[in-house]
Amino acid sequence: MEELAAGLAAAQLTADGGTLSTYSIDQGPVTDWQLPLAVVWAESVEDVQHIARTCTKYSVPIVPRGAGTGISGGAHAIKGCIVLSLERMNRILALNPEDETAVVEPGVINADLNDAAAEYGLMYAPDPASYRISTIGGNVATNAGGLRCAKYGVTRDSVLALDVVLADGSLLHTGHQTFKGVAGYDLTALLVGSEGTLAIVVGVTVRLRYLPREVQTIAAFYPDFRRAAAGVLAVGKARVQPAIMELLDYGSLEQLDELNGTDLLARGKSLLLVQTDGFAAVAEADVIREVLAAGGAVVTTEASEEAERLVDMRRSSRGTEVDDEFRVGEDIAVPRSRLVDFVAALEDLAARHEVRLKVVAHAGDGNLHPTFWADRVDELTDAGTIHRLNAALDESIEVGLRLGGTITGEHGVGQYKLRWLGLELPEPVRALQRQIKGIFDPAGIMNPGKAI
Amino acid sequence: MEELAAGLAAAQLTADGGTLSTYSIDQGPVTDWQLPLAVVWAESVEDVQHIARTCTKYSVPIVPRGAGTGISGGAHAIKGCIVLSLERMNRILALNPEDETAVVEPGVINADLNDAAAEYGLMYAPDPASYRISTIGGNVATNAGGLRCAKYGVTRDSVLALDVVLADGSLLHTGHQTFKGVAGYDLTALLVGSEGTLAIVVGVTVRLRYLPREVQTIAAFYPDFRRAAAGVLAVGKARVQPAIMELLDYGSLEQLDELNGTDLLARGKSLLLVQTDGFAAVAEADVIREVLAAGGAVVTTEASEEAERLVDMRRSSRGTEVDDEFRVGEDIAVPRSRLVDFVAALEDLAARHEVRLKVVAHAGDGNLHPTFWADRVDELTDAGTIHRLNAALDESIEVGLRLGGTITGEHGVGQYKLRWLGLELPEPVRALQRQIKGIFDPAGIMNPGKAI
Ligand SMILES: Cc1cc2nc3c(=O)[nH]c(=O)nc-3n(C[C@H](O)[C@H](O)[C@H](O)COP(=O)(O)OP(=O)(O)OC[C@H]3O[C@@H](n4cnc5c(N)ncnc54)[C@H](O)[C@@H]3O)c2cc1C
Ligand SMILES: Cc1cc2nc3c(=O)[nH]c(=O)nc-3n(C[C@H](O)[C@H](O)[C@H](O)COP(=O)(O)OP(=O)(O)OC[C@H]3O[C@@H](n4cnc5c(N)ncnc54)[C@H](O)[C@@H]3O)c2cc1C
Repeated sequence: MEELAAGLAAAQLTADGGTLSTYSIDQGPVTDWQLPLAVVWAESVEDVQHIARTCTKYSVPIVPRGAGTGISGGAHAIKGCIVLSLERMNRILALNPEDETAVVEPGVINADLNDAAAEYGLMYAPDPASYRISTIGGNVATNAGGLRCAKYGVTRDSVLALDVVLADGSLLHTGHQTFKGVAGYDLTALLVGSEGTLAIVVGVTVRLRYLPREVQTIAAFYPDFRRAAAGVLAVGKARVQPAIMELLDYGSLEQLDELNGTDLLARGKSLLLVQTDGFAAVAEADVIREVLAAGGAVVTTEASEEAERLVDMRRSSRGTEVDDEFRVGEDIAVPRSRLVDFVAALEDLAARHEVRLKVVAHAGDGNLHPTFWADRVDELTDAGTIHRLNAALDESIEVGLRLGGTITGEHGVGQYKLRWLGLELPEPVRALQRQIKGIFDPAGIMNPGKAI
Repeated sequence: MEELAAGLAAAQLTADGGTLSTYSIDQGPVTDWQLPLAVVWAESVEDVQHIARTCTKYSVPIVPRGAGTGISGGAHAIKGCIVLSLERMNRILALNPEDETAVVEPGVINADLNDAAAEYGLMYAPDPASYRISTIGGNVATNAGGLRCAKYGVTRDSVLALDVVLADGSLLHTGHQTFKGVAGYDLTALLVGSEGTLAIVVGVTVRLRYLPREVQTIAAFYPDFRRAAAGVLAVGKARVQPAIMELLDYGSLEQLDELNGTDLLARGKSLLLVQTDGFAAVAEADVIREVLAAGGAVVTTEASEEAERLVDMRRSSRGTEVDDEFRVGEDIAVPRSRLVDFVAALEDLAARHEVRLKVVAHAGDGNLHPTFWADRVDELTDAGTIHRLNAALDESIEVGLRLGGTITGEHGVGQYKLRWLGLELPEPVRALQRQIKGIFDPAGIMNPGKAI
């Protein structure tokens, strides 16, 4: 602690109980709650190097942290660790409109980068629903997806180069400032999604895209979820690529109505929300509307304000924790053709385990976020409820894998999903991953017990 | 040899001199010509495993080979190696139109996959100019770019999962069948572009895209190359994303005219060839035409046949080796804003070194292929010529790097570009890459002396 403090300003390190507690978890489920020894805020690359070197010297694990909006426990504190917050390294270092790139510090909030880019008619495409609160560094570390990834790809597809600090304090630059580059192995892609277990991201060069001049939003209400899921495939068959294609079921609409005082449920039991963008937004929306109506949807063309409101509501559809409910949920992705089967299986298993189900999906990518939930009643009943919820959750994962899916489409493995990782990745693949970690982090102090 | 042969059919192995010679090089420059001990054709995954195990046992280096169209010497034979050809593993194993994915063996020719996908209104987007002759396995191993990468991204962006055989003969599956997936480190992205130095690609799951229903091609002729390069930026500033944006200079047009009997040079001294596709192809082409005309271009809207012919001519603009010329050329990419500066520098240095210059560029990605050339005269003069050509080439690389570029945008480092790799990648990054190779290939028999 003394050595850490010696290289930092007073306001950059604390062992204050309240702060330790705030920084001890992200928004993921907590299975093994631990307080960090300290929270440290880096304000420069040199700070990060100093912190890494000091932690290496004393074998203290480092848990890097952006905004702590992760939902897999990737930023949860572990025993004897320090939490290294990058939130104060939040400068946009360069915005190059002609190159269509930007260079940012890791703590820049996704929405702030987008605001800055918008002044030049550009955007940073990957937009997790948390884009107003999560950091680019956290997005990179989790390879975050988002709504418009259906068209523009995930975080990895927009990251050109990285500056990272290794556990030993050394600073590395990977990648290239150009759109394309194949000199040497793609360490940049390896680091993206590594959840702070290989290195600390201290600088990010991203590719920007053109801000679309036209956006059209279509709300298609269906009598049931399965038909809505079939709508996703129908749009695909029409060979139209929407920017956004989000699916909300009864439970999600019900919750949105409650939170926002809307009457979505009066309009249908399931909602497919589609956005087209660019020069062809109108033409593409026309085709989509026709296709969806043919599939049994009541299709409305929202006035642009109302439409934006719907998309905004979707972005916040995770809702806030409520005290009178238990919830468990995941982030499974399946091949698109299995969407309907998977949704049917989810409904079936929720009924069998006597729990309630709520699903939102980045349906264009086959990425579903099912939530199983139940009311809190009393301690005795609750134990059984929690057991049934977890059984439903485990079974949903198994079914997803059986349909050719993955346990995590975008949120990362973190701490919480480690229990399922072996179901997806065979041991030899995991062994390789551990060996790769060993190269970057021989002492094993970088966010141990996460991601792999 | 005996053990290799024991596990294979007779037609799968040869030590015939003519064949060894044919398979001893790809289309890259030859600096250290070596004959392989044998050429071996795998026809199944098990064959590859048998070959790998046998080579490991006797410490015989393996040079994997697709179609041998590489132009960096990545598939050049090395001393004491066998060449492992994957060209006979050329089945499309699955084409899943609803999932919008395909699973192929490595020897499938890019164009064949595209033909098969087209029947469903789909396409495999990455289209190196060699798409009619190169293999998907080779494309994956080099992370090939191509013309429509401007809009659809490079090979890595279309690869979802890989089956690979390691040097020890073990078979690994990496990645996911879904569009998105973040379980564990991204070994798939690490393997893409690794040029056969980590593992042998024996299966590839790719994402397909929608075949555009409308394509528009614009030919913009300019009085000089610099103004044409400025046109690329002008299109960007109009915030239109073309599918293809190719730039050809005087020397390239001259060569095309010679080869094809066309009169391109009569129309301008430099050509910017732009293609828009999709629902907005017409609207986007309208904007582009206006912008380019404002920048001094003579813009023609080609009738579709003529336009396709121009794009085809561009695809074959590498031309064939001719006996009466020396040529050296590269694959530099620079940030888009530096295109004009780089082209100016190339013209300047060609003049200084008294060599001739020809440039084609995937200009949308800032990726240029300058070729320096000169006539063969007689042996005495030729030695000086070769020296001047190489000096020009080296200087072009240095200038590209100084402008923030990379030594290779898409062709790979192979054997030929190793001499410049240290100029781009700092030693600690290279050390990490060597260690990663050590994990996958501890005995160092996988295509040694290439890529890293
Ligand atoms: C309302 C809500 C909606 C969401 N919607 C989406 C969505 O649509 N798509 C999606 O993908 N996710 C979504 N998420 C999850 C979360 O926002 C993302 O995972 C996000 O990328 C995390 O960013 P962060 O800055 O909060 O990172 P944190 O939560 O602080 O950290 C996430 C992980 O990255 C590591 N890390 C953070 N910064 C660095 C760094 N600089 N260097 C190295 N490692 C680092 C941490 O150790 C941890 O493992 C949502 C979350 C919420 C609360
Ligand atoms: C006319 C022409 C135009 C071209 N245009 C382009 C272009 O626009 N964009 C572009 O990127 N390239 C281009 N190239 C270069 C070349 O076509 C690409 O690099 C292509 O990807 C090579 O594929 P291939 O099957 O011929 O591979 P090869 O040349 O046989 O091999 C290339 C490299 O990959 C390795 N390799 C091959 N197959 C495997 C496998 N199954 N497993 C592991 N390693 C393997 C080899 O060892 C070697 O290192 C062009 C070449 C020509 C001749």
